[in-house]
Amino acid sequence: MEMVEVLHMNGGMGETSYANNSLVQQKVISMTKPITEQAIVDLYCSTLPRRLCIADLGCSSGPNTLLVVSELIKTVERIRKKLGHQSLEFHVCLNDLPGNDFNTIFKSLPSFQEKMRKQLGSSFGPCFVTGVPGSFYGRLFPTNNLHFIHSSYSLQWLSKVPEGIKGNKGNIYMASTSPPSVLKAYYEQFQRDFSLFLKCRSEELVVGGRMVLTILGRKSEDPSSKECCYIWELLAIVLNEMVSEGIIEEEKMDSFNIPQYTPSPIEVKSEVQNEGSFAIDRLEATEVNWNAYDNEFCPSEAFKDGGYNVAKCMRAVAEPLLVSHFGEIIIDEVFSRYREIVANRMSKEKTQFINVVVSLTKNG
Amino acid sequence: MEMVEVLHMNGGMGETSYANNSLVQQKVISMTKPITEQAIVDLYCSTLPRRLCIADLGCSSGPNTLLVVSELIKTVERIRKKLGHQSLEFHVCLNDLPGNDFNTIFKSLPSFQEKMRKQLGSSFGPCFVTGVPGSFYGRLFPTNNLHFIHSSYSLQWLSKVPEGIKGNKGNIYMASTSPPSVLKAYYEQFQRDFSLFLKCRSEELVVGGRMVLTILGRKSEDPSSKECCYIWELLAIVLNEMVSEGIIEEEKMDSFNIPQYTPSPIEVKSEVQNEGSFAIDRLEATEVNWNAYDNEFCPSEAFKDGGYNVAKCMRAVAEPLLVSHFGEIIIDEVFSRYREIVANRMSKEKTQFINVVVSLTKNG
Repeated sequence: MEMVEVLHMNGGMGETSYANNSLVQQKVISMTKPITEQAIVDLYCSTLPRRLCIADLGCSSGPNTLLVVSELIKTVERIRKKLGHQSLEFHVCLNDLPGNDFNTIFKSLPSFQEKMRKQLGSSFGPCFVTGVPGSFYGRLFPTNNLHFIHSSYSLQWLSKVPEGIKGNKGNIYMASTSPPSVLKAYYEQFQRDFSLFLKCRSEELVVGGRMVLTILGRKSEDPSSKECCYIWELLAIVLNEMVSEGIIEEEKMDSFNIPQYTPSPIEVKSEVQNEGSFAIDRLEATEVNWNAYDNEFCPSEAFKDGGYNVAKCMRAVAEPLLVSHFGEIIIDEVFSRYREIVANRMSKEKTQFINVVVSLTKNG
Repeated sequence: MEMVEVLHMNGGMGETSYANNSLVQQKVISMTKPITEQAIVDLYCSTLPRRLCIADLGCSSGPNTLLVVSELIKTVERIRKKLGHQSLEFHVCLNDLPGNDFNTIFKSLPSFQEKMRKQLGSSFGPCFVTGVPGSFYGRLFPTNNLHFIHSSYSLQWLSKVPEGIKGNKGNIYMASTSPPSVLKAYYEQFQRDFSLFLKCRSEELVVGGRMVLTILGRKSEDPSSKECCYIWELLAIVLNEMVSEGIIEEEKMDSFNIPQYTPSPIEVKSEVQNEGSFAIDRLEATEVNWNAYDNEFCPSEAFKDGGYNVAKCMRAVAEPLLVSHFGEIIIDEVFSRYREIVANRMSKEKTQFINVVVSLTKNG
């Protein structure tokens, strides 16, 4: 099966759903808010559009899906009212792969629209919301149609597992034990994918259009650095353990690889410059704890269990990939073991994700 | 609950799904094809657009959803190639209420796009497909954005059950025993809804934009005519029977009414003229048998059972409304009885739906 048909966050609203296990992603969105806000304010003030078309790429399904969009709209409305301008039409395009749970998003739209109207008053809107299923490694929107693109925690996903990584035995992602050919294959896949992404978006954005991308990445220039690979290495440990116990076939394990690349700011900058359609306004790397409930109000004892939270978060993200490769039957066992191993490591060291944030303007 | 949250065709791909029980609707689409084709050819030849934005309103989920769209695109591509013109961008907007099963449509898109590319060759496209959840009795699209609107078997649905129809005891729709006040309330709701529909669409279409609407209707000027009301009268007989047996509460039955209006061509014409944004190019009424499998190749014995087919078709359409009002528990029993009563009547008389088809052009 093609990656475009397999990869998606867990749907619905249940215990293992992405909707209920995406607090890290929400934290990252909040952390990035000042950058996103600045970009949309600049865009609004420099172009004063009568129609503002905003796309969120990799919108998933859950509370985060409409969070970014509503913040962006509120920011524009605040500045519009301050400047005493006429109301404008908002056109919101929510994109994700075709397997994403769009039904759950769509069912929440009537109450979302109602809430926005209440908060923003009668001069707000109209606001049209559409779902755009498809891979962002291809064209998604008509030419010269978008004003603003946002994407958070999506662009680390590659269009496919790179070819030529058979030598990555025992690993499921880049790791310190991966041969250089594997690291090279991963990097080149990232280069091809990210550069195609930039090209497609530049065709879809109007001149002066803006784009804010947050990518799960790393600070180090070593692509097998622990800061980006450790979370998958721990999953590999679990899977290898289950291979040695005869629960998983070795051949199955060897052919499983995560279609991700976690780039450094320099790698992101280099692709943007090579592709040439965009100017970089800002480029930063920030950190967020694996367990998003750190320092948060804990509504139940369960939330104090970092291993539990991280395992659930990773399950919501990776379950469809694992099920498609290994079948459904091993999933509970995998994540039960993963929870323990993650909890153990978290008690002994500082565990963080790195976010690479880049704010771009389309060149004229 | 609001109608916008309740009304939708049965989702998924199962036995009672709309996807597997929408052959009548498919037949109607084929019957209307010459009119739809003429409209899009006229549109293409008179405007020669570089981007063609097509919307299907009330697209539902099933084989019919992409049938119309693919026929429209093929027609445009045929004429474009014949005229030796450059390729154009297609933008397809699939609309239905938020409860519609968009996930199933979206999952079928990669193979749909693949098939279109194979059939139409390398000069086709790009073709962007988006889902637009919401009621068409309100704005759905940005201003001056659409070129072509299609809607089949959707506009007979009202935005809500009309108010002031308490006198409709024992009926669930307009019927020969309905008091004049009930018929009036239904008609006025249709007038308000259809006129609002026309106003919204006229804001969304470009000047010269086209619209082909097929509405379940009637030929007679009597709104309680058997040709449009009989199918619901038979359902009312079943429900009343179950009331008399104590299975359904009388009060529940009395408060249940179908939010539909099946207009005559003259009523459609009158609203279009009053609203004033559109010129009528064609207006017709056609007939289709209740049992779409009549005169068709029958892949199984079951399909020869007209009562079975019609009951399944009506169930796919009406189940969510009935479940929301009466609960899930009575549904199998309702449609088992309905199947018998429908089969009985079909064996004794000619049973047909009437389609009102109108082709419109937005005035300059």
